[in-house]
Formats: sequence, C-alpha cells, structure tokens
Amino acid sequence: MNADLVIKNGMVMTLDNKFTLYDQADVAITGNKIVDVVPQTRYRAKKTLNAAGKLVMPGLINAHTHSAMVMMRGLADDMPLDRWWNKFIFPIEKKLLNPEFVAIGAALAAVEMIKSGTTCFSDMYFFQQAAAEVCKKIGIRALLAEGIIDVATPDAGSVAEASRITDELYQRWQGDDLIRIAVGPHAPYSCGAECLRQSQALADKHDLPLHIHIAETAGEVAQFQQQHGQTPVEYLDKLGFLSGRVMAVHCVHLTPGDIEILRRADVKIVHCQESNMKLASGYAPVMEMQAAGLTVALGTDGAASNNNLDMFDEMDSVAKFHKLIRKDPTIMEARQVVKMATGNAARVIGREQELGSLEAGKLADLILIDLAAPNLTPLYNPYSHLVYSAGGSEVDTVIINGKLIMENRKILTADEQAIMARANRLAHKIKAEVSHG
Amino acid sequence: MNADLVIKNGMVMTLDNKFTLYDQADVAITGNKIVDVVPQTRYRAKKTLNAAGKLVMPGLINAHTHSAMVMMRGLADDMPLDRWWNKFIFPIEKKLLNPEFVAIGAALAAVEMIKSGTTCFSDMYFFQQAAAEVCKKIGIRALLAEGIIDVATPDAGSVAEASRITDELYQRWQGDDLIRIAVGPHAPYSCGAECLRQSQALADKHDLPLHIHIAETAGEVAQFQQQHGQTPVEYLDKLGFLSGRVMAVHCVHLTPGDIEILRRADVKIVHCQESNMKLASGYAPVMEMQAAGLTVALGTDGAASNNNLDMFDEMDSVAKFHKLIRKDPTIMEARQVVKMATGNAARVIGREQELGSLEAGKLADLILIDLAAPNLTPLYNPYSHLVYSAGGSEVDTVIINGKLIMENRKILTADEQAIMARANRLAHKIKAEVSHG
Repeated sequence: MNADLVIKNGMVMTLDNKFTLYDQADVAITGNKIVDVVPQTRYRAKKTLNAAGKLVMPGLINAHTHSAMVMMRGLADDMPLDRWWNKFIFPIEKKLLNPEFVAIGAALAAVEMIKSGTTCFSDMYFFQQAAAEVCKKIGIRALLAEGIIDVATPDAGSVAEASRITDELYQRWQGDDLIRIAVGPHAPYSCGAECLRQSQALADKHDLPLHIHIAETAGEVAQFQQQHGQTPVEYLDKLGFLSGRVMAVHCVHLTPGDIEILRRADVKIVHCQESNMKLASGYAPVMEMQAAGLTVALGTDGAASNNNLDMFDEMDSVAKFHKLIRKDPTIMEARQVVKMATGNAARVIGREQELGSLEAGKLADLILIDLAAPNLTPLYNPYSHLVYSAGGSEVDTVIINGKLIMENRKILTADEQAIMARANRLAHKIKAEVSHG
Repeated sequence: MNADLVIKNGMVMTLDNKFTLYDQADVAITGNKIVDVVPQTRYRAKKTLNAAGKLVMPGLINAHTHSAMVMMRGLADDMPLDRWWNKFIFPIEKKLLNPEFVAIGAALAAVEMIKSGTTCFSDMYFFQQAAAEVCKKIGIRALLAEGIIDVATPDAGSVAEASRITDELYQRWQGDDLIRIAVGPHAPYSCGAECLRQSQALADKHDLPLHIHIAETAGEVAQFQQQHGQTPVEYLDKLGFLSGRVMAVHCVHLTPGDIEILRRADVKIVHCQESNMKLASGYAPVMEMQAAGLTVALGTDGAASNNNLDMFDEMDSVAKFHKLIRKDPTIMEARQVVKMATGNAARVIGREQELGSLEAGKLADLILIDLAAPNLTPLYNPYSHLVYSAGGSEVDTVIINGKLIMENRKILTADEQAIMARANRLAHKIKAEVSHG
C-alpha cells in the first residue's frame, strides 16, 4: 500500500484506550492523517523517517497558555501576584502590546513549544489575528481565544468590540486545518454577567469552546462569597454559563459542591500545576475532580508565571506534587499523566475524535523522542521516562498535520535565530519601559 | 599575563557573596584553579574558549545521590516505598550488584550529570572503589561514601568490613585532586549505636564528612519515638554523633527542637525535593532550617526515585514547591536557590573555600550555558532562567578541575555511546531478574 510518509522501526506509544505500545512498529501517514499503525512494514512511501532507537508518540497538547507572554519571561519573579500584575505585566501590556508584539511573542512561543514536543496549544491573549497568522505560517496547531474583559483591553475598547474581534477571527479562520478559534471571557471576576452571557451566546452560535479562568486564587473565591454569597462555580452555574463547551482553567479553590456542579455540566478542566506553584495560588483538587469523572488536561499557563512552555516539566511536577500532597506514591501513575497531556487534552479542547492518540483516521500530530540519551538509559518503562526523566530537549522530530515541522531538532518552517533576534530587540523596549515605569 | 585557559566574552555569574554578575567578562584558569575574573581581557592563554552569548557559572553540586542506581531508573515507579524496596531494588542489589555493575552505573550517572551541568557530586553506595575509578577516568569531582549498615551489604559482611573498605578507600584516594571519601553510615534506623560510633570515629580519625540519611519518612520517626522515646535527631544528639562534619540528608520530619539541635551542632543539610515528592515522603521544613541558620544544599537522590540527576529540575521544583506550600511567592528567590545548588553545597561537603563560586583561587569547576535558546529568550534575569526555565540540556561546555570535560555537548573524556550500550546490556540482566523474581 502507498502512503505519503512512513515513520519506520520506532517504539510506538499509541495512547489509544488500551495503551497499546509496540516495541517496534511503523506509522503510515497520508495527507494530514494517520492511515495505519502496524508492527510489520507494508507501506511504500514517498518519504520515510527512520525512527529506530526513538519513541514515536502523539504530540503533546498544552491546554492553557498566553503564548506571547514569553516576552515577559523572567521579568518579574518571586513577588506577590498584585505587584507582578500592577507593576510589571499590566503597564507593559498597556504601553507596548500591539499586533507586532504578539506576532513576535507567538513566534517565539511556537518555536519553544515545537522544540519541546507540543504540537497543539490552547491560548488566550490579545491581537490573536497576529498569533493566528504566525502559527499558520510555522505550522503549529492552535485554538486561539481573544481575551474578553469588562474593561478596555489593549485591542478592544469594550466587550462588544472584543466579541466582534472574536467573531471576525472565527469568520476568517473557519475551516482552516490548523487554526481554530475559541471564545475567551477572561474570568468571572473580570467579566460581568452580561459579558459572560454575550460570550456564551457567541460560542453557542458558532459551536466554539469557551475558554475561561475559574477559581485560581483564594482571594477570588472570598470576593465571590462576599459579593454574591456564592462560589465562582455556583455563580456561573446560576447564570447558566456552564456546559460541555467550557474549558475551565485552574479550578484551584473548589468545594465538593463545585466539583459536583462541574461534573453535572460536563465542564472540561485545565490544570496548571507549575503556575499555581510559582504564584503560590494553591493546589487544585485534581484527584477529586478525576474521581468525579471530570476530564483534566494540563497547561503551562503563560511563561511569565512558569517560566517555560515545556509540557514535560509540567507532567513531572503534576505527578510528583500530587503524590506528596496526598501522601500516596501510587497515585498519578505515569501513563495516566501522559494521557492528561494528550488524550485528555484533546477531549478538553473538543477534538478527542481527531487528536490525542496514534490511531488510523486521526490527524497526524506526532513527535519522535531520541531514546539514546543518558537520562533515558536504561529503558524499562517509556511512560515513566516521559514523566519523570525526559525533558523537552529529547524531542528530535515533530510532525503536525502530516507535515514535517522539526527534524533532528532543526525547525524547518521558521528561522529560529531570526525569531529570537526579533524577540531580543523587543525585549530592549520592554526593559526600557520597566526602568522608566 | 599568561593563563592556561581563558573563557572570553561570556556573561559571568560569579555567585560570590555579593552575587557579582558581569554582563561580559573573562575567566582565566591556570592549572586547576581560577586565577582571575575580569571585565577586560588581559590574558594571553594557551587555549581560549569563546563564551559570547553564553552564561559562565560555577558547576552545580549534587549533594546527595546513589549514582549507580541509574541502572534502576524507571524500573519501579508509582508504588509504596516498601514494595519498591523489597520487590525490586533490594533483590536486584542482592543478586546483581558487583564492581562491574557499579562501574557501569557510575559511568552512566557521570555522563548524565556532566551533560546537565553537575561538576561535583556526593554519593553513597556500594563497591565505591569501582565508582571512584570511573569518576577519576571521566574527570568528574566526587565525594564517595561506602554505605555502612548493620546487616550484610552486597560487598561487606559486617560493619567492621564496611568500615575497613571505607578506610582503604581513604588510603587509596588520599591527596587525589578529584576523588574524596566520606564515611557513610546509612541511617539511624539501619545502623545501631555501635555502628554509628565506629563511623564517627573513622570520620574523626581522617577528618572526613559523615554522610547519613535522617528523618526521611514519618514511619522512621514514629519508630524512633516508639523504641527510644526520642526523635532520630534527639537520638543521634544523645549519642554524641552530631557535629559540623555530618551531612544530614532528607530531614523531612523534624520538630522545632530537632532544628535547634541540628543548628547547635552545625550539621549540614541536604534537601531532596523531587525524591521526597515522588516517594510521597513529605516536605522538609527548608524555610525553617534556613531561618535557623542551617546551610541547606540540594540533591537529586538516586535516579530510582527521581528519576534523573538533573539539578536544574531540582532547583525548579524546590523553588516552586516551597512557594506553594508556604503560600508565599516571594520566598525561595531564584538566586538563593542557585546558591543552594552551588555555594551552599560546597559548604555542606566541606569545601566552601575551594568550590561554589567563580573567584580567583578557587578550583576551576565551571559550566557554560547557551543562552541562544527559545526557552531562555528574552533574558531579563539569569538567576530566574536557571531556576524556572532552563534544563540541563542547555549546558554546552563543562570544565572540571581546570580540564575541558564537555564541549558543545560532546563529552571529551568518555565514550558516551559505549557507556549507554554497556548499561543497556546490564539492563537486560536486571529485567530478567525482575521477571524471574
């Protein structure tokens, strides 16, 4: 049989429902889809990649970030959230954020993500048309949400304007094979009831995911209790906002009742362990949410609060942290954590039929990891290596939508040096703004 | 002036007491020592390394590991400690551990550590003569302790024999410029009073560090309370065991009284955050120990419970975890965490006059980090990048004791592929043992 591309002789981790793992198999790709995963070679291909000594697995999905914020990576650490926001992030965004900033930041983020094995990400930020164009050009899959907030944002004077931008983004990218649009009401504390209703209506109209931060800090929950006598989740439930299309990010401070509400509404959860740690936000009841049947994906959050976009770091932290906090080394088993960064994430962003595992018919988003590294030697259990020992730098080849995007750590679709040089020039302006501010 | 080696034009992080940081400086090395760190070039050198675009900093010090246990990396995860030990680690050690096993494992560990920027490590394991020879050959600095336990170990039938091995190791390596020996009574629960006294006497006799695990698990402390009516620290204090030469590893479950005892005795502390998380041992009161004036270094612990030897991972986890658990994002400031992995560690292993910072007169153990990486772009604060964003793979050049050990990620003193091949062959035997066991 014929295929466009066959990845031969690799150890293949399918992450299908049975966790099928082949010591050696071939993955055949035609167009943008996987057509077969077979232990014996039987395809004639236009192009062949030799994956001997490598692990072939689905690309990782970063279910929550603010990609262009890589430009503020390391600018303001080890400080309280309000100082971080008011003294650094907000003034810079107000003064400097524009389509060029977002294009530069999104390109840097895309390159960083590809080089650490992320093939798809869910993003909330501003000037997302600029991010969309960059992602399309570089060839990374993205679900982009324009941030909608009650107050003026860097690119929208009102909720109506931000909604209009979202609608235009949707119209512009409808049917695209890489770029999809979500509706992004920022959070229940920054979006009033009317804003939330408008966002929901827009999402319903075009059948889009609703990307929102919920219950990130204890302060947020306390404020809701004081103002509404309700938790943020109860409040959103009463508004009728919660549904299967909601991607609820953080969900750190939840009551058992909140978890039950989220379960009933089939809300999808994104857990950002490292951001929650670094900002000292608290720890999300991930085990409780999973026990209730909720689907939990992982996200790095923006690089201004992580400070990288490496999903391997995130998997490692998630597995280890929850073992300790629950005093149980048997929980967060490695392969379940890998699933959180792949199949679970695919479900969370509404694409479980197309992404998250290596199976015939699914989109060809996959990565090759070089196993010939001291920290991955010897190899008893590849799931364990991915979670506990590997770093993003072990990823040597990345295929997205059937297209070879990185080979032997060289990105083929973008000029990495030029992207870093542009980012460094913009960083000079950011530094000047901070020292003048 | 003349020097053997000058590292030119790098950003130089000295980690001296003032945290002096040069945007651009040269580091001059003659023999095995740093002779100068200067902003302007003034040395004629036999060899020059161009560090433009790179960060030059002291090599990291891994203050606690069991290096040859890399051979059991990923063999047994996500299970209770007793099952991990009794069903996997102990039977394998009993059946397969010998000098060849340790040589193979120590070489793999040395290569992994060098490739992630560790230039010196403190180790406790068995057949340490084999490890010493490997480290000497590859050129990594090591402080090696032969594990001393009341019961027979894989290479010693009694405490007396293990002590004799330690004494012979000391005699053999006395005056060596890379290899030093410590005395390694395993832990107060595995070493009786007589064993601890003999170890202490041996350490006193030769002026050696005493490397011991203390208060790793709640079970250990409960057992001491039951058997002795004392905490492990109180017990060791009453024995007269505690002193400035004791390197106390873990110190997870301490009372305020324990911390005061450790402070008074000037005991040195090694914190193994990721191992404590993965095994769900608990979290060490690091902030309390530091507030009391104790010096705390970082260690990865063995790769069977981490599962890698990357000190960048360790720094990241330490900084983030303690912020969260103390609900304070301002603690564990990045540069203090870098200091824990360098200067503090040098003090803990008894070598603060010679290691831990880039200053004239100190030993030339240093690493170069390539800053031209997407995850390190832009650069506002190099300390932040080291802790929150970098991984070991950004280290591109390693110098130990004045000698170039790795350049552009190629190890010059060992055949990395051959080391991994030998480890893979040994892993087959380990796998066979597990499936027969």
